[in-house]
Amino acid sequence: MQALEAILSDLLELQHDLTPSFVPSQATQPSALEFLRQVHTNFPVIYRAAALEWPAIDATSGRRWSRKYLLESLKHTTVSVAETPLGNADAPLGNLFVQPHTSNLPFSEFMDKLLDSDGDTVCYMQSQNNNMPTEFPQLVDDVEMDIPWATEALNSKPEAVNLWIGSSRSTTSLHKDPYENLHVQVLGQKVFKLISPAEHICVKESMLKKATYNKLSDGFELIIGTESQPWPTLDPDAIESTDFWQSKVRVIEVVLNPGDILYLPALWFHKVSQVSDADGLCCSVNYWYDMDFTGPLWPFANFVRSISNSLAGVEKDADIKDCVKDGNM
Amino acid sequence: MQALEAILSDLLELQHDLTPSFVPSQATQPSALEFLRQVHTNFPVIYRAAALEWPAIDATSGRRWSRKYLLESLKHTTVSVAETPLGNADAPLGNLFVQPHTSNLPFSEFMDKLLDSDGDTVCYMQSQNNNMPTEFPQLVDDVEMDIPWATEALNSKPEAVNLWIGSSRSTTSLHKDPYENLHVQVLGQKVFKLISPAEHICVKESMLKKATYNKLSDGFELIIGTESQPWPTLDPDAIESTDFWQSKVRVIEVVLNPGDILYLPALWFHKVSQVSDADGLCCSVNYWYDMDFTGPLWPFANFVRSISNSLAGVEKDADIKDCVKDGNM
Repeated sequence: MQALEAILSDLLELQHDLTPSFVPSQATQPSALEFLRQVHTNFPVIYRAAALEWPAIDATSGRRWSRKYLLESLKHTTVSVAETPLGNADAPLGNLFVQPHTSNLPFSEFMDKLLDSDGDTVCYMQSQNNNMPTEFPQLVDDVEMDIPWATEALNSKPEAVNLWIGSSRSTTSLHKDPYENLHVQVLGQKVFKLISPAEHICVKESMLKKATYNKLSDGFELIIGTESQPWPTLDPDAIESTDFWQSKVRVIEVVLNPGDILYLPALWFHKVSQVSDADGLCCSVNYWYDMDFTGPLWPFANFVRSISNSLAGVEKDADIKDCVKDGNM
Repeated sequence: MQALEAILSDLLELQHDLTPSFVPSQATQPSALEFLRQVHTNFPVIYRAAALEWPAIDATSGRRWSRKYLLESLKHTTVSVAETPLGNADAPLGNLFVQPHTSNLPFSEFMDKLLDSDGDTVCYMQSQNNNMPTEFPQLVDDVEMDIPWATEALNSKPEAVNLWIGSSRSTTSLHKDPYENLHVQVLGQKVFKLISPAEHICVKESMLKKATYNKLSDGFELIIGTESQPWPTLDPDAIESTDFWQSKVRVIEVVLNPGDILYLPALWFHKVSQVSDADGLCCSVNYWYDMDFTGPLWPFANFVRSISNSLAGVEKDADIKDCVKDGNM
């Protein structure tokens, strides 16, 4: 298998030679044509301060989000909350893929738990099911329901607009999504660690047994299921430089501040950490636009994945097409 | 190597499942945004009759190209002409890659030879070196020097605008170019046989020894060189259905009529045959726009090529980057 290793090494080298080692920032919003050129490169970019005048972010709007504003706006709202002991919803844990305990809580109760930084439960509102318009109509006018230049470029409205409310205690493990993603930071900071689709061999995809946290009165238990799930097990914050493939990976870090919009291209691996603001909150809204499955990106990413997993001896999962339906890998 | 065969078969299947089995036609010219979406899919399309009102094509312009018009316009012009015995310039011949004898001829002499359909020399004006503005200033006002919606979409003027004058006797063998290509048919017809970059394993790339035709008083001799050149040896008009990979290839045929513009995406394999008009001519103008080397297409095509050639046991050529400089594979 020496030949395959060399071919994959060449691919990493080509990827690194042809693309920047950082995410470029630009201070102005793009035109639709400029944004589509960016999408065509499948490379991330930050539009700095592009959403700074949204009511949710603008301190002069009277509708700037804060603990107080959200508690008042959502006092009659029940929210779906992911609860874990370690802030590790949908994450590898040894040879398990652990999913959170999910509770429906009054918003005020969720906020109490979220802001109890010593509590034995880490809460994260991360439902990713187009929750913004469906569950939070009270907040819709504080943000945008699409990004106009992206909608024009991609010729469709977002497939989902998601509201995320969490704290420094939660981390989203490395994964990828089959969407063109625009991520708008509202409160606090998010730190993205990014890896390109070409570098699949480096992310250590493994078949992990699915498990779900169940909350008990005095902590959590793990219910281990029968199904397995392929998932990247690399932690970009704990690269082992003695490992052949890990030594070759290029991890690109991005820090998003309130008002920044990150274009996170389809199929890029990303780990996301959070930094709470003075209120203890980290809050963002993201826009998932359908990716183009007919162009080179989708077959490229799947082919690289198949070759990489074949070389690494990873068990093959059921069907590539299932990954699309699942909404992520 | 069973695993690799299965992975490459899956790739072909995915490519065929996700893309049409024909080249769509549209009757209207695209906006820049629409064209960029097409480029993003890396899939061909025909803009039917989009150039029908160019003076070179419009019968009422008084500048419509014809044998007579070209002879008059270019009576003082010397042209670089590819001469071969079989209409096979830059083509595989057994285990050779044969290049034409090249002559500089007065245009009228070239036309006499081109239109002598029984002559022992097949002529083709196919220099591909941005010859339109540099060698044929007399004809520049009869066509366009760029395609405005492509220039806007791709944010640059064409790298080269090439005039092609040939006849039914010449064929261009299967190859690919690292350019986004717009091909405008002016006189006669061109027939393209297209194969997607994902299907590299099917095109039978081989290392061929370079040879050059040398014209003698009574025919041609072949001067065999010392260098080799990788080239696809598949003839899409002679598919062997008993061959494993040839049986899987999808060849898409396109016939271009005067006024039609074909978008031929970067890195698609294409064989081109010609049909002369009543004057005995086949004439077109093509626009090579720089492709984006930073997006997924270039690493995808190179990776598929490396894996395919590794499986097929094709000798590795010097360096991927040389292919870019060469302008084709």
